[in-house]
Amino acid sequence: MCGIIGIFNSTKATELAMLGLFAEQHRGQESCGIAVSDGKYIKSHTGMGLVKDVFTPKIIKKMNGHIAIGHVRYPTRGSSEKKNSQPHIVETLFGPSYALSSNGDLINYWEIRDELEKEGVFFASDNDGELLLKYIVYQIEIKKETIVDAIKNLIRNIKGAYSTVLATKNELYLFRDAYAMRPMCYSELKNGSIAVASESVALDILNPKWKKEMKAAQILKISENDIQEFQIDPQEIRSTETEKHCIFEHIYFSRPDSEIFSENVYKVREKIGALLSKDDVEVDVVVPVPDSSNFIALGYAKKSGKPFELGLIRNHYVGRTFIKPEQTIRDESVTQKFNPLPHFFEGKKIALVDDSIVRGTTLRKIVKLVKNAGAKEVHLRIGSPAVKYSCFYGIDTPTQEELIANNMSEKEICEFTGADSLKFLSWEDLDKSVSRPQNYCKACFNGDYPIK
Amino acid sequence: MCGIIGIFNSTKATELAMLGLFAEQHRGQESCGIAVSDGKYIKSHTGMGLVKDVFTPKIIKKMNGHIAIGHVRYPTRGSSEKKNSQPHIVETLFGPSYALSSNGDLINYWEIRDELEKEGVFFASDNDGELLLKYIVYQIEIKKETIVDAIKNLIRNIKGAYSTVLATKNELYLFRDAYAMRPMCYSELKNGSIAVASESVALDILNPKWKKEMKAAQILKISENDIQEFQIDPQEIRSTETEKHCIFEHIYFSRPDSEIFSENVYKVREKIGALLSKDDVEVDVVVPVPDSSNFIALGYAKKSGKPFELGLIRNHYVGRTFIKPEQTIRDESVTQKFNPLPHFFEGKKIALVDDSIVRGTTLRKIVKLVKNAGAKEVHLRIGSPAVKYSCFYGIDTPTQEELIANNMSEKEICEFTGADSLKFLSWEDLDKSVSRPQNYCKACFNGDYPIK
Amino acid sequence: MCGIIGIFNSTKATELAMLGLFAEQHRGQESCGIAVSDGKYIKSHTGMGLVKDVFTPKIIKKMNGHIAIGHVRYPTRGSSEKKNSQPHIVETLFGPSYALSSNGDLINYWEIRDELEKEGVFFASDNDGELLLKYIVYQIEIKKETIVDAIKNLIRNIKGAYSTVLATKNELYLFRDAYAMRPMCYSELKNGSIAVASESVALDILNPKWKKEMKAAQILKISENDIQEFQIDPQEIRSTETEKHCIFEHIYFSRPDSEIFSENVYKVREKIGALLSKDDVEVDVVVPVPDSSNFIALGYAKKSGKPFELGLIRNHYVGRTFIKPEQTIRDESVTQKFNPLPHFFEGKKIALVDDSIVRGTTLRKIVKLVKNAGAKEVHLRIGSPAVKYSCFYGIDTPTQEELIANNMSEKEICEFTGADSLKFLSWEDLDKSVSRPQNYCKACFNGDYPIK
Amino acid sequence: MCGIIGIFNSTKATELAMLGLFAEQHRGQESCGIAVSDGKYIKSHTGMGLVKDVFTPKIIKKMNGHIAIGHVRYPTRGSSEKKNSQPHIVETLFGPSYALSSNGDLINYWEIRDELEKEGVFFASDNDGELLLKYIVYQIEIKKETIVDAIKNLIRNIKGAYSTVLATKNELYLFRDAYAMRPMCYSELKNGSIAVASESVALDILNPKWKKEMKAAQILKISENDIQEFQIDPQEIRSTETEKHCIFEHIYFSRPDSEIFSENVYKVREKIGALLSKDDVEVDVVVPVPDSSNFIALGYAKKSGKPFELGLIRNHYVGRTFIKPEQTIRDESVTQKFNPLPHFFEGKKIALVDDSIVRGTTLRKIVKLVKNAGAKEVHLRIGSPAVKYSCFYGIDTPTQEELIANNMSEKEICEFTGADSLKFLSWEDLDKSVSRPQNYCKACFNGDYPIK
Repeated sequence: MCGIIGIFNSTKATELAMLGLFAEQHRGQESCGIAVSDGKYIKSHTGMGLVKDVFTPKIIKKMNGHIAIGHVRYPTRGSSEKKNSQPHIVETLFGPSYALSSNGDLINYWEIRDELEKEGVFFASDNDGELLLKYIVYQIEIKKETIVDAIKNLIRNIKGAYSTVLATKNELYLFRDAYAMRPMCYSELKNGSIAVASESVALDILNPKWKKEMKAAQILKISENDIQEFQIDPQEIRSTETEKHCIFEHIYFSRPDSEIFSENVYKVREKIGALLSKDDVEVDVVVPVPDSSNFIALGYAKKSGKPFELGLIRNHYVGRTFIKPEQTIRDESVTQKFNPLPHFFEGKKIALVDDSIVRGTTLRKIVKLVKNAGAKEVHLRIGSPAVKYSCFYGIDTPTQEELIANNMSEKEICEFTGADSLKFLSWEDLDKSVSRPQNYCKACFNGDYPIK
Repeated sequence: MCGIIGIFNSTKATELAMLGLFAEQHRGQESCGIAVSDGKYIKSHTGMGLVKDVFTPKIIKKMNGHIAIGHVRYPTRGSSEKKNSQPHIVETLFGPSYALSSNGDLINYWEIRDELEKEGVFFASDNDGELLLKYIVYQIEIKKETIVDAIKNLIRNIKGAYSTVLATKNELYLFRDAYAMRPMCYSELKNGSIAVASESVALDILNPKWKKEMKAAQILKISENDIQEFQIDPQEIRSTETEKHCIFEHIYFSRPDSEIFSENVYKVREKIGALLSKDDVEVDVVVPVPDSSNFIALGYAKKSGKPFELGLIRNHYVGRTFIKPEQTIRDESVTQKFNPLPHFFEGKKIALVDDSIVRGTTLRKIVKLVKNAGAKEVHLRIGSPAVKYSCFYGIDTPTQEELIANNMSEKEICEFTGADSLKFLSWEDLDKSVSRPQNYCKACFNGDYPIK
Repeated sequence: MCGIIGIFNSTKATELAMLGLFAEQHRGQESCGIAVSDGKYIKSHTGMGLVKDVFTPKIIKKMNGHIAIGHVRYPTRGSSEKKNSQPHIVETLFGPSYALSSNGDLINYWEIRDELEKEGVFFASDNDGELLLKYIVYQIEIKKETIVDAIKNLIRNIKGAYSTVLATKNELYLFRDAYAMRPMCYSELKNGSIAVASESVALDILNPKWKKEMKAAQILKISENDIQEFQIDPQEIRSTETEKHCIFEHIYFSRPDSEIFSENVYKVREKIGALLSKDDVEVDVVVPVPDSSNFIALGYAKKSGKPFELGLIRNHYVGRTFIKPEQTIRDESVTQKFNPLPHFFEGKKIALVDDSIVRGTTLRKIVKLVKNAGAKEVHLRIGSPAVKYSCFYGIDTPTQEELIANNMSEKEICEFTGADSLKFLSWEDLDKSVSRPQNYCKACFNGDYPIK
Repeated sequence: MCGIIGIFNSTKATELAMLGLFAEQHRGQESCGIAVSDGKYIKSHTGMGLVKDVFTPKIIKKMNGHIAIGHVRYPTRGSSEKKNSQPHIVETLFGPSYALSSNGDLINYWEIRDELEKEGVFFASDNDGELLLKYIVYQIEIKKETIVDAIKNLIRNIKGAYSTVLATKNELYLFRDAYAMRPMCYSELKNGSIAVASESVALDILNPKWKKEMKAAQILKISENDIQEFQIDPQEIRSTETEKHCIFEHIYFSRPDSEIFSENVYKVREKIGALLSKDDVEVDVVVPVPDSSNFIALGYAKKSGKPFELGLIRNHYVGRTFIKPEQTIRDESVTQKFNPLPHFFEGKKIALVDDSIVRGTTLRKIVKLVKNAGAKEVHLRIGSPAVKYSCFYGIDTPTQEELIANNMSEKEICEFTGADSLKFLSWEDLDKSVSRPQNYCKACFNGDYPIK
């Protein structure tokens, strides 16, 4: 996960990039950064933490320019240090000259890095984005390739998921891997600028005239007067017939108000909920584990005719990290994040809806919380099949051993969580929830990895 | 606004206080602090920002002790500086000896402060809490009063709202003003400790055996072996027959999962929604301005039989402050916080539910947002009467001139917001939404200030 | 060691205090601090490092007031942390109310501290100054003594060396132990202020009308209109007939331009040099180990008629600490501080003059340096007897075991240093070098400790 | 002014560089920096302030490598900011690849910089060193010159004073301008390393086998197995027949224990003092303004047979900056730096020796100080001719208008200072004080600038 942004041809490039990142903050809260070119050279600023804290008015004021790219980082490869923050920059005699932000994970990272290091290329981090950037600059500066050819070589040789934006002093380049794994879209803004982002919500905030999805293995070169498009035939490269979008972007990761892979996330989620409710037990109310499961629960409630209720209140000041007090009160850590409405659950039969089960430990605590609050029955309804395989393309899943569905049967999982019943989304229903099911990577569910 | 916490007799006093503050973070994000006594002396730590950022594991580790009090601050009186952070401390030859946290605003602050300053008492801040503390310590150290008598004098002489917790090296004192304006409750925890908090959600996280509301003009002295209770007759002091709880705590400020003034906040809100829906126009869907209006909208939807929909997505990374880009894009600031679901509003008649109208400028932008997203009709439904008067007891309202309801008729407000219709909660319905309506201060609506 | 300063009745009190500290910087470079009263309350600022770095113009600007005291600290008791910085402050309900700076070491520190702690008095540091201050404030606040009586009790009960200045909001108190061990002098300035300092050079910089030495066991109370003097008969207290000034202040510690214990430091040093040269070997040149031995060497040179030469250049950027590179080059650490003039020493017989020998390791390296630079003969001439005992009154000497003169005979020391001859100042000559020899503590040479 | 250091082939390269800088700290206290190569890439660290404060053990530990260069900066061109700190670094795709430190000022800086900027070369500072580095790297990377040829081009085209050291990942290059204006020497150390420095004292601390002066327009390329020497005929370039060393390095700037331009600084200074004393008035004592004039005064004293006395004590904690208290005590600022020995000057006739007169304001205050201390007569003896012209080659002189000798006759200057007589070093005597007088630039005295 991670989020990218790019702005071309705006006198407010840094501010627009910041607004875009701000809308993508859910894709990464560890660190963020922006690089901006004023045509002469590129300035950049990165910091640990949230966009609103890192980009103070004082910082923004210094970052004048008309081309900006940015990044919010959720740590996958590379440790939690500032040097792993993006955008990455390459400096030359002519000053900081290239900047790059990317979302996704590379498969043959070490192979490519070893090759470049043998040629003397310097790496300051273990970050995917730096590899992509150094690969391109090596092609340009040493092999004397054009930038477009350098990117073509990259798409042909570097395996993995990457939705990428590259700024030079005067141009902006967009490109995406042949599988189109991570989301990436762009638009022309009403002020005439071009904007690119991971999710469409980041474009929404910028007043777009239109929004388009980047194609797999597509390259866009955006310069002062035109946008040139270069298309590599993805079939030359990929081992699958179709694109392989990450299905988890719909289930969990993207914002519900985003349009991802040409589908509305909230509609996919509502459909999942509706499909889950088919022939289900009779309950009194439908309650989501907020906020990620809200729309799945809404879909369930509408289809089943049962009332949708916000029975669990989420403390938004936790983010994705818990305060970790010492041992004696640790087991209650989930209570920091969720609190039941008083007297709400008493005597009720609940359909408790969540998006997925990974380790199962948190859900167990939530079930306990709801039962302690007086629920008569808790029926867990999960908006995806059981997660059985690790993701190598950018989703931060634990090792296979830690995935509960690898160690327990559905029945055992149900017992483990303490729920009265448990139901995963079926394979058929998963396919029904999106319009082109064959275009999705579902490796985390079935182990069928599109890129080896 | 602001939130307090107190813990007595736990080896994890600081950690429990932190967890409690964490659950009350919505009551103030500007600064926070904890003071802890180990029986010999009192240590304290305060900082600007959120509990999770200020109280790092390293800080917590240093703050051993068994009595802790804490505070989250939302700035009312006193500027946004660290010196205004609570808890306040009084130091003597015997080390830091008294610590105090309070929620509420004082009416005769300057009168009391002038008296104390004439006696030479030193003030480091303009903060209400410091005045309460210095008043008490002056009584104890100079007038040789007992602590309980000092607090009695305080309750008799200092006018205003205050829900207060005071720690000495070995004891914890709780007290509340004669009007019981701000919430305050306490409980015995399952581990035998005593805990006190502004809202019951902060007790919930600590495993309470039972929870009780503090009484108006009540004092509790908690020492190693017992809890002593002292009760002043509120009628001696207050100019009203009954308590005067802040009605806005129910409408907007408290968490929906709190029990405030012996009523469940979410139930009050649902009732408000139901009352609002009476004889109302026919709409397609009911949409809250999230999250503060969620339960009002849920109540409206249930009563009216219209579908409840999360049509506006809120960016939780904004908190209560917006990123303020320069002029050209400022008008779109509300889009940083709210984004409409794509294709959702198209052609629909919407009941758009909010809790209150203060200046009206934000609501106008939200209406515009929803209309631009394709809504056919927008019917604004407001869960409270029109706010016409400033609050002097702790709610941060603008001056009377800035309140839109002072300058415009209901019809003009409707036009200003661009809505197709506008309906406030009526006076009668406000009274119906709580069980003891005469016990509430509604000065912000009717100017009937209980304390002069 | 350490240095104190006090200013009474100047609108520039903080600036004058800073200038005074600046002249006493050689007495302590670890930390420094100033406290200032404007009549209403006392502000203070302390920091690690040099006066010029800690007291920036921004800090000074905030520290308005007319009474200031200050301190430079050389660590003896108490670790190298900011909490051990002086001045110490006692805060009460009436704000920060008392501030104290002291130079010297206490003998019965723990005995007195235990007594006070039993009464509940709080200690934030292990610093002598804090004990003196808390002792006084305990007498005043709890025992209801006058400040003068509190100080009298202190002088009678606390054993050790202390040259002390105490500020209240409106008054300045000066006092000194019955042995008058550490220097302390005061003066009226030309602008009418009163100033007090450890060394007269700190008064010189402030334009004094006159300068006076504080008497042993004397107390001065300086208030707006007069100076009251209180004199305890030192014979009531001390076990010796006379004062016992630290002889090392003359030999090494004080600045040569100071007047200490009613004698000019540079004259004492020149006399020591002259006495050392009596009947000495014939040398070509007299070279000091700069800068502490410059005047001893000048005295030697003048008396002997041999040329005084600055053959060793000292790097003043070292201060008293060396950069410590790793093992391989550590032995050369003395070369960081001293460098011989090129071609200067070649073939010459040198009288190499130093003030004292403590461990002997540095002198050995200097002799080697000089020999390597080509000196034919090196005759070490030491301006004091051999140091054989540790000091408990404020000079930072190593433990007795580490003192070279405890482990080796004079002849062995000479061999150890590699010098061709070695001569210490004789006992008779030490007595001749000052005008009232019986008034000095020489415990570091003879073990005759005046205070047990 | 400024100081440089370079170390080749030592496992302790950073530590040795730091020791060298430490010995050159008098050449610049504003900022300092070191860059070190481990053969793969170059790390660097710079900071404001002194070497001992910037290079903490923690920093040093991270800076492993076997080639190091360093710099201490005294601000001339470029403001007092960290970006002007040297060494400068050029980064490429292959990491930080070139580092350079230089001492001296360039004459055609803007002309050369404009040329390079037209080619797109990026400048991060206004610093001479960055220009030299970018000039070289431009030749190498773009013009494909060898490094040696690039430096040859530099020496032929860039006018001004520069003693420079350049590190690549594996080599060290030394070069100096055709006038050899600023000092520069190198040596082989006993451990086999090569070291280069501004002043020989920096080599002394490193255990040199031998020390050599760099020649004018000479280039040394130091690589793993040999040292190659390249010599440009300086006559091709320079407009003067001989080298033009800065005479002020001898008079004031270099350390007395340095060997500069093949002469011992202290001997030059003693000779100046001896020449000054010729046929002079009869005085009682000779007193230097310490420390820069010590050896001039020693030379005067020896020749005249009058006693050398350290009558003024210098506070070494001032460095070159004064604490600036507000107006009322500002005039006494010189008393912060110098204090007279008490009773020393009374009734004496003094030869007061200083190295030079620039503005004359400080000397006036010193004369007043000495007179106030009781001196009967003060005869100012100045170790150089009157400074009448600004320096453009690296010495920080004020504008010509501020130079006192431009506005007053010798007699008027004497009156201005308050001295009883004033004598400058004569032109003839200046020439006698060094062995090859025609080899020196004396432009600050006579306006005869060697480089236009």
